[in-house]
Amino acid sequence: MSIEEMLRCNSQKVEKALEDFLPMRSCRQADLIEAMRYSLLGGGKRIRPALALEFCRVCGGREEDVMPFACAVEMVHSYSLIHDDLPCMDDDDMRRGKPSTHKKYGEALALLAGDALLSLAFETLLKSPAQPQRVLAAAKELADASGYLGMVGGQVIDLDSEGKRIDYDTLKAMDEAKTGAMILAAARMGCYAAGADEKAVQAAAAYAVNVGMAFQVTDDILDVTSDAATLGKSTGKDSRDNKSTYVTLYGLEKAKEMADAFTRQAVDALGCFGEKADTLKELAFYLAGRKN
Amino acid sequence: MSIEEMLRCNSQKVEKALEDFLPMRSCRQADLIEAMRYSLLGGGKRIRPALALEFCRVCGGREEDVMPFACAVEMVHSYSLIHDDLPCMDDDDMRRGKPSTHKKYGEALALLAGDALLSLAFETLLKSPAQPQRVLAAAKELADASGYLGMVGGQVIDLDSEGKRIDYDTLKAMDEAKTGAMILAAARMGCYAAGADEKAVQAAAAYAVNVGMAFQVTDDILDVTSDAATLGKSTGKDSRDNKSTYVTLYGLEKAKEMADAFTRQAVDALGCFGEKADTLKELAFYLAGRKN
Repeated sequence: MSIEEMLRCNSQKVEKALEDFLPMRSCRQADLIEAMRYSLLGGGKRIRPALALEFCRVCGGREEDVMPFACAVEMVHSYSLIHDDLPCMDDDDMRRGKPSTHKKYGEALALLAGDALLSLAFETLLKSPAQPQRVLAAAKELADASGYLGMVGGQVIDLDSEGKRIDYDTLKAMDEAKTGAMILAAARMGCYAAGADEKAVQAAAAYAVNVGMAFQVTDDILDVTSDAATLGKSTGKDSRDNKSTYVTLYGLEKAKEMADAFTRQAVDALGCFGEKADTLKELAFYLAGRKN
Repeated sequence: MSIEEMLRCNSQKVEKALEDFLPMRSCRQADLIEAMRYSLLGGGKRIRPALALEFCRVCGGREEDVMPFACAVEMVHSYSLIHDDLPCMDDDDMRRGKPSTHKKYGEALALLAGDALLSLAFETLLKSPAQPQRVLAAAKELADASGYLGMVGGQVIDLDSEGKRIDYDTLKAMDEAKTGAMILAAARMGCYAAGADEKAVQAAAAYAVNVGMAFQVTDDILDVTSDAATLGKSTGKDSRDNKSTYVTLYGLEKAKEMADAFTRQAVDALGCFGEKADTLKELAFYLAGRKN
C-alpha cells in the first residue's frame, strides 16, 4: 500500500468513526452539534489519528481499542483550531478552505463547540474497549498533552511572542507544545492501546517529537512558498504578522535542511520495530514533502 | 458540626487540595497559570466539592480517593464561569466580587485559562488513588456532565433563549443541563469514589437533581431580592436582559414555594442513608435559605 493509500484508507475509517462518536443532530442542542460536525468532519489530513492507528498496529494492538483514542486526539485538534481562529486569538476567517467556525456560526457558538469537543474527546476515549489501565494511561496522556504544559501552553507562548523577535529555543518550545504535544500524544496513545512495552513507547515518542518538528518547519516553509488555494488557509501571514519562524530566523534553504534532518531522526528512531514500521517511515518522508 | 462549619472545613480542605493540584507559577506559562489561579482560588462556596466529599463519606469511602474528583468538578465549574463571562457570551465584568478573568487578564488569556482548566480537571481526576474502574466511572461522569448534553448544552439553550419568553420545560431543561449536570456529577462521583452500590448512586442522583433545581430557583430569587455587594455579582440582570426565570414566570412567592418543594424532595431522597446523611439534609435547607 502506498503512503497516500494508507492515509486515505485510515482517513475514511476515522471519518466514519468520528461520525459514530458525534451526537445525533436531532436533540435540543442541534445548533451546537451542527457547529461541532462542521469543524470536525470532512476535512484535515487526519495525521494524528493515523499515527495512533499505525503505532497500535505496529505494536500488535487491535483497531477497535485504538480508534476511540485516535478520534479523541482529532477532536482535541479540532477544538484547538476553533478557539485559535476566534477574533480574540488569531482572528482567522478561513480554515481548510472554508469559513472558520465563528464566521459560520458566530463567536458564542464557536466557543461552546470547541468546549464541547474537548469534553467529547474524553467521553470518546473512555469508550475504548481496551483494558482499564490502558484507557487510563491514554486519558492521562490526552489531559497532559492538551493542557497548560502542552497545546494550550504553546498557544500562550505564541500570544506572548506576538510582534516580537523570538529565539530558536522559544520557537522550539512553542512548537513542541502547540503542535508537538498532541502529535506525541497520538503516537504514545497508539502504543498504550496495544499494551506496548516502555522501549516501544520511547521509540514512538522519539519518532513523534521529530515528525512534529519537521511538520512545523514545513508549515513555516509552506506559509512562504504556497498559495491560499493549495494550502486551504491564508498564506504569507507569518511575515505580515512579523512572526518569528524557522524561515525568518534561518532562511528558506536552511529551514528545508532542518525539516530533512528532523525527518531523518524520526525515521532512525523506528529501528526497534523493523520492517513493520515501513509505513511510518514513509509517512515521515511524505509529511516533510507535503504541499499543504 | 453545624452546616456552616462543615462547609468552611470542607472548603479549606478543597482550597488546599486545589493549590496542590494547580501548577507552579515558575514555568514558561506563568501568565496562564496566574489567570487559572485567579479564577480557581479564594472564592466560591465550593458546593460541588462539598457534595462529592459528603457522598463519599456517607457511602464509607476515603477522602484521598474522592478529593481529586471534587477538585476536578470545581475546576470545570471555574472554567465554565470564565467562558460564560466572556464578551461573546454574557459579557460580565464582575465575578465573586472581583473583576472577571478577561477583565483582569484580557480575552485571549481568559479563553486559554478556561481551556487549560478543563484539561487540568481530567488530569487531576485521573490522579485519584481509587480503583481503576472507579476512576474511569468518575471520568466518564465528568466528560458527560461537562459536555454537549450537560453544562455546555445548557449554555446553548441559554443563548437560544436570549430575549425570548421561554416556557417552564425549556427553563428546566436549561437549568438541569447548565448548573444541574455538574451538581449531579459531583454527587455521583462521590459515590463512585466509595464504590457505592446502584441504589446509593440513584438516591444521590435524586437528591442532587432536586438540590440543583432548588439552587437555581434560589439564584433567580436572589437576582431580584439581593444586592451586588451581598451577591458578589451584578443583580437585576435577568429582568434587564428580559430573561425568563422562575420568578418572571411564576412570581416571587410561587418561586419561593418551588424552591422549598425541591428542597423537601431532595431531603426525602436521602432516606436510605439514615442518620449518616444528616449533614446533606442540612446542606439542602442551607442552600435554599442562602443569601448569596
